[in-house]
Amino acid sequence: MRAALLLQCPDRPGIVAAVGRFVAETAAGNIVEADQHSDAIAGSFLQRVEFDTDRALGELAGAFTPIAERFGMTWELHDLARSARLVVLASREGHCLGDLLVRCHLGELRASVVAVVSNHPDHEALAARFEVPFHHLPIGDDREVQEAELSDLLGRMTPDLVVLARYMRVLPEWLVERWPNRMINIHHSFLPSFAGARPYAQAHDRGVKVIGATAHYVTATLDDGPIVAQQVLPVSHRDDPTRLSRRGRDIESVVLAEAVRLHLERRIVVYGRRTAVFD
Amino acid sequence: MRAALLLQCPDRPGIVAAVGRFVAETAAGNIVEADQHSDAIAGSFLQRVEFDTDRALGELAGAFTPIAERFGMTWELHDLARSARLVVLASREGHCLGDLLVRCHLGELRASVVAVVSNHPDHEALAARFEVPFHHLPIGDDREVQEAELSDLLGRMTPDLVVLARYMRVLPEWLVERWPNRMINIHHSFLPSFAGARPYAQAHDRGVKVIGATAHYVTATLDDGPIVAQQVLPVSHRDDPTRLSRRGRDIESVVLAEAVRLHLERRIVVYGRRTAVFD
Amino acid sequence: MRAALLLQCPDRPGIVAAVGRFVAETAAGNIVEADQHSDAIAGSFLQRVEFDTDRALGELAGAFTPIAERFGMTWELHDLARSARLVVLASREGHCLGDLLVRCHLGELRASVVAVVSNHPDHEALAARFEVPFHHLPIGDDREVQEAELSDLLGRMTPDLVVLARYMRVLPEWLVERWPNRMINIHHSFLPSFAGARPYAQAHDRGVKVIGATAHYVTATLDDGPIVAQQVLPVSHRDDPTRLSRRGRDIESVVLAEAVRLHLERRIVVYGRRTAVFD
Amino acid sequence: MRAALLLQCPDRPGIVAAVGRFVAETAAGNIVEADQHSDAIAGSFLQRVEFDTDRALGELAGAFTPIAERFGMTWELHDLARSARLVVLASREGHCLGDLLVRCHLGELRASVVAVVSNHPDHEALAARFEVPFHHLPIGDDREVQEAELSDLLGRMTPDLVVLARYMRVLPEWLVERWPNRMINIHHSFLPSFAGARPYAQAHDRGVKVIGATAHYVTATLDDGPIVAQQVLPVSHRDDPTRLSRRGRDIESVVLAEAVRLHLERRIVVYGRRTAVFD
Repeated sequence: MRAALLLQCPDRPGIVAAVGRFVAETAAGNIVEADQHSDAIAGSFLQRVEFDTDRALGELAGAFTPIAERFGMTWELHDLARSARLVVLASREGHCLGDLLVRCHLGELRASVVAVVSNHPDHEALAARFEVPFHHLPIGDDREVQEAELSDLLGRMTPDLVVLARYMRVLPEWLVERWPNRMINIHHSFLPSFAGARPYAQAHDRGVKVIGATAHYVTATLDDGPIVAQQVLPVSHRDDPTRLSRRGRDIESVVLAEAVRLHLERRIVVYGRRTAVFD
Repeated sequence: MRAALLLQCPDRPGIVAAVGRFVAETAAGNIVEADQHSDAIAGSFLQRVEFDTDRALGELAGAFTPIAERFGMTWELHDLARSARLVVLASREGHCLGDLLVRCHLGELRASVVAVVSNHPDHEALAARFEVPFHHLPIGDDREVQEAELSDLLGRMTPDLVVLARYMRVLPEWLVERWPNRMINIHHSFLPSFAGARPYAQAHDRGVKVIGATAHYVTATLDDGPIVAQQVLPVSHRDDPTRLSRRGRDIESVVLAEAVRLHLERRIVVYGRRTAVFD
Repeated sequence: MRAALLLQCPDRPGIVAAVGRFVAETAAGNIVEADQHSDAIAGSFLQRVEFDTDRALGELAGAFTPIAERFGMTWELHDLARSARLVVLASREGHCLGDLLVRCHLGELRASVVAVVSNHPDHEALAARFEVPFHHLPIGDDREVQEAELSDLLGRMTPDLVVLARYMRVLPEWLVERWPNRMINIHHSFLPSFAGARPYAQAHDRGVKVIGATAHYVTATLDDGPIVAQQVLPVSHRDDPTRLSRRGRDIESVVLAEAVRLHLERRIVVYGRRTAVFD
Repeated sequence: MRAALLLQCPDRPGIVAAVGRFVAETAAGNIVEADQHSDAIAGSFLQRVEFDTDRALGELAGAFTPIAERFGMTWELHDLARSARLVVLASREGHCLGDLLVRCHLGELRASVVAVVSNHPDHEALAARFEVPFHHLPIGDDREVQEAELSDLLGRMTPDLVVLARYMRVLPEWLVERWPNRMINIHHSFLPSFAGARPYAQAHDRGVKVIGATAHYVTATLDDGPIVAQQVLPVSHRDDPTRLSRRGRDIESVVLAEAVRLHLERRIVVYGRRTAVFD
């Protein structure tokens, strides 16, 4: 098995040595990749170790628990060989959805899309091309009804990651809080600029010379969660909102796919409102 | 003389033909560069024509006035051969100031720095190296005293452009309004993100993966004027505010110099809160 | 009909006026977009005009011929509303193919893929998902046999554009010359660096800090045709050839799709070994 | 003293532990930064450790020698607090020279320019502004005479680093070989494209859509040494060689200054034709 251990704790001497011994001795592991970060301002230490081992995940987790307790660690241990289950939420724009479906098909992402959910019927055919069940959950008179249906559906699908691939509805706090650090959204601006609705129109109105796209974990506050990846591209006065929207699509797809890959390869440590990305 | 004509007006047929006849016939001019933009949303037409002519600027301006009135134009006519007078305001950080001094020395910018003004004494030696008068205007108990001195000094220096090269004080509205579209500031973030104080600390706190720099005309509202140029660079969790600050310097210098060049070559049309940059 | 007129000729007075009259009077057209370029070094004038008209393409072409002859123009007139026929050639890597199939499906490109051809069987399933015929043309003992089959197939499919989407075989001169400026290749380097085989290995060996991707029209000389679009991304010593290859994929897909879009929207004028891209 | 230890050797177990003990015990050092790289293809291990210590450099070097021998290391140990001596060579273009002078003046680079040498007299005044001796070594009938004078001068100045800041003459092999990994050149293209003379003209002729600048250590083969830093910027058919040259200047200055900084902070390990940059 190839495993990834992610951890964070207050910085103090001895952590690297203790983790090193755990991997070498307890796991009889062979380190493939190791990276770490000391955040002097927060006083935090963060580490990611990727290693090959013959031991079982449960056994390793049991053995690591006392080490974690000693250093006050928040930690995760993952089997990287396991293919992840994605649920993708989309609305009218299909480019991010299509991109994810192709990447899963080609094996670029170690994952399969187990369901596509949308408040619009538009992309049923696209999902069908990849033999992925499509769930149309339109928003009727009472949006809470749809939110409850969506939450039930997510619960039944047991996804490892929920991907908001240009899903254009704000999710209620109670729903978001069920998927902490397991729900990634693509927002079509370089956050924190232009949070909320119609970011390309906002960008045009403000007259910026650069637009962007941001992939972030979803939290209860809209477009405010920890940022995983961002990309930008230069624009000019010739780019009206329609053209901004067309040109921005390419970076949206790429940034979202990048964030999903980083999550699936367990390269992200969230600490406070920030992320360390060990790539 | 090489001249630049900049204009904007409501879009309607006949503008290009009328301007073309003016340049060809009245100015007996030879067009070197011409560019235009129709903003369908604002219903505006914007144009820049650069041409060689033997006629005098005043004569041409007189002849253009009836055309401008017919189409309801806002317009400017400039002699591009004339070297401009810059006043540069700085505080503690000297990289933008140094960069502008070198560019003027080398003739990369058709301008000379006629004065450096600062609320700190730090860069007197740097100004002296380029034989530029340095004015130290410290901020004492009453900031309004310093603002009045600064305004007097600017008035006496008759600059074509006032450049805020990391000048870290907010200027009062009444002073800014004396230099409409003739005062350029560099802000060390990709506006509208992180306006105001300590943008690199803000960027670090928010955990963005991209930082930027923005050159904009100064208006009465802080960091809110029309954007002329922006650049960005990718960052990671390893970049603490000190490192962000160091890495950001290079794009600050380059973006500010770019904006000054665009202004001096009369390539910028401000309309509303936006700019068209004909480069 | 929305039409695009592309032309090039020796630069001299009167061209813009003549084209303007043709569009306004002969075509009774409404100009949507117009752009032009004078190349002072080559002495060439290039222009693109996009306009709406009720006249038929053949009629317009007939009326434009004498104007073109007067100025010695090379020119093309296209119906932009017509959906184009693409034939996509691929080998083992499927990301560019998948990306093009999704974009055609979503209508981002005004085109349909009428055939996928490959020297490997790998992507039959992907083509099938989009109901596109897949032609497996393996290279046996005599590569000339395969080349003849490929040429026959292209001839039968009557594509508007042949797209080499990471097709890893060099095509013979005689075949390439049948599709002048109608065959686009993606090469996974920033040409002219690293032409030929295994560009990521070459890039790693040379130790560059930037890699790139180049979309270009195919000519008889390998990787030497007119460049349409290029993109780059920063890399470090940590990027071994495998990782370069993975990271490069995203810019390959985006650059190739961009070049196909520019071709289909008839925004490219090839002159000599260079392109003007009116976007 | 703040010290930097740079090393490379065949990869095998025990290196990190041995280096760690050396810093902790022999140097009684406090690690400020540590980074490493295993190059699986070359079978090499590279490491940089930056640490504070009270021991003297000579003493530390003596103590490290047996460790280095045991692992077959190539290594360097530097005092980072020491200000370096730069000799800058330039020709007609002064932007890189001016940029370096300003950065040294401001303390952005921990170095002083001890001499400017040029085959043209143009930048004597610029050097004088910063009180740096200027040596005009024109190339007469016999270029070998000038090369001998240049070599003598470099020998006398005992620079830590020789910076070719757009010096437009090819240096002879014998001279280059006296300054291995201590002579940095800026070449105004993204190498390996457009080595040799007039890269912007070459870039224009080839019709690329991206231009670049490359800082590299100088070796006996022209424009072929290990690359330290590269940057690029997008261009279009509108950019003739003059405009390419103007636009390229900004990235030339920035890339060269970046390479000089990385060298002075001892962040570069050269191995084979490649560099690892621990920044």
